[in-house]
Amino acid sequence: MIKIAVVGYGNIGRYAAGAILSAPDMELSGFVRSSDTSPIPEFPGIPVVKTIEELGKIDIAILSLPSRSVKERAVSYLEKGISTVDSYDIHKDIFELRCTLDAAAKKGNARAVVSTGWDPGTNSVIRAILEACTPKGLTYTNFGPGMSMGHTVAVKAIKGVQNALSMTIPIGTGLHRRMVYVQLAAGADFKEVSNAIKTDPYFINDETHVIQVDNVDNYIDMGHGVSLERRGTSGTTPNQTFQFIMRANNPALTSQIMVCTARAALRQAPGAYTLIELPVIDLLPGEREAIIRRLV
Amino acid sequence: MIKIAVVGYGNIGRYAAGAILSAPDMELSGFVRSSDTSPIPEFPGIPVVKTIEELGKIDIAILSLPSRSVKERAVSYLEKGISTVDSYDIHKDIFELRCTLDAAAKKGNARAVVSTGWDPGTNSVIRAILEACTPKGLTYTNFGPGMSMGHTVAVKAIKGVQNALSMTIPIGTGLHRRMVYVQLAAGADFKEVSNAIKTDPYFINDETHVIQVDNVDNYIDMGHGVSLERRGTSGTTPNQTFQFIMRANNPALTSQIMVCTARAALRQAPGAYTLIELPVIDLLPGEREAIIRRLV
Repeated sequence: MIKIAVVGYGNIGRYAAGAILSAPDMELSGFVRSSDTSPIPEFPGIPVVKTIEELGKIDIAILSLPSRSVKERAVSYLEKGISTVDSYDIHKDIFELRCTLDAAAKKGNARAVVSTGWDPGTNSVIRAILEACTPKGLTYTNFGPGMSMGHTVAVKAIKGVQNALSMTIPIGTGLHRRMVYVQLAAGADFKEVSNAIKTDPYFINDETHVIQVDNVDNYIDMGHGVSLERRGTSGTTPNQTFQFIMRANNPALTSQIMVCTARAALRQAPGAYTLIELPVIDLLPGEREAIIRRLV
Repeated sequence: MIKIAVVGYGNIGRYAAGAILSAPDMELSGFVRSSDTSPIPEFPGIPVVKTIEELGKIDIAILSLPSRSVKERAVSYLEKGISTVDSYDIHKDIFELRCTLDAAAKKGNARAVVSTGWDPGTNSVIRAILEACTPKGLTYTNFGPGMSMGHTVAVKAIKGVQNALSMTIPIGTGLHRRMVYVQLAAGADFKEVSNAIKTDPYFINDETHVIQVDNVDNYIDMGHGVSLERRGTSGTTPNQTFQFIMRANNPALTSQIMVCTARAALRQAPGAYTLIELPVIDLLPGEREAIIRRLV
């Protein structure tokens, strides 16, 4: 049995624990939380500790932490020989994170998989597969409709905003409309808030609509989706078309993929990887022969 | 530059040559044909030989041969140290082929990838990815509309049939209707032919319609497609849905994937593999860093 720790207990941590308990080859050793180590009612009997050492021998840690906290925590675990999986989602910095964690993992004889989940993650695998099918062509990744965590956090940081929800609406060819629902703080001016959002770097390049509501919580839904499209040329033959559509509970999907990635991580040589660098068969439990007979 | 030979010259061989000539890191060393070694007008200057040895040092051979001829040819090449890629498509025997070629490849210090193309092949990768996203659930692979090579050959073998085309029509949940267009031999009885087709093992379990036409060639189109669908549960969260849709020129797509698989094969340790056992990044040309930056 693979001994796994869940580090952090937000939406991803909670769903990851459920996925681990549903896996035939894994054991949930405990939760690591820096702030609150009281028992978690949803997971009775599962230890909640301040530092991972308190859980004894751990094979791998699911880092369900904000992207900006991933690097430091992963390096410290990897150097101690504890493998890690994260869902770091700042696309432009993924390769640098992989390089940093690669050195730490090799030092600690551990494995790290960076930036797994559905995007970056399984969508990256599908983009790679479609580029192999058609080396020349255009891929568009159309996100949503669904809540953007990053954009929502950016709106919440704006002065005068008490609560917010930023929805990502696909308008085709990889472009997105932002529908922003805001609940104002007492005395805030809607026009000022709306202008501040529309000129924020997160929104300035997209068509953005800001709508005032009384209670943002009434509109929150964890469903998300994607339509990933490619048209391209195989050899010298044009007009090969592909579309991948997903509709899912976002944190449930992200954390399930992280948990399968943890299994795959432990099957690799020490070092750091992105999901497209792993054989997909390694994500699945069970005998290799049975998987090949079932899926190939 | 990877030196590649194309073995056989049917539809797949012809399109594979085009894909090799379009690749930035490959060189088409020549064609191997047992019957006819006259120059091929479409590929001027490319040698056509009877045995692969006549081409000098070859890294890998694309076996564009009927499935039943793959094993013998692959074993003979692998034992000589020439790696192979095939599109063997008899699903139930794929694992056995992989085992046989694994032994031959290790003996010759070569690599084999068996059963690549779009199904088995890239669809197998997508099925594996979707099982990682939702470990519990049902996947349906709906083929077509498109020409089934295997079913067409089966019809052509029936007495009284001069020419035939068997189209695969998806009717959902992985079931298919067979629309069979037949051109009768002189003196053949349509009712007898139709009965023979409907009771053939290839057709007896499917809804099959047989239609008499004057000239089958007027109906042949190399377009094919798939709709691969899964609904399943991530952790304990149900109703996660996925659909992958492809519409393509069938031999162009199959051969392009075989050519990319040849690149990936040479990046593995000696032995035999199916596509789900390879990291997808290995299918693509160019620097690993650039691929990760572009696709992850």
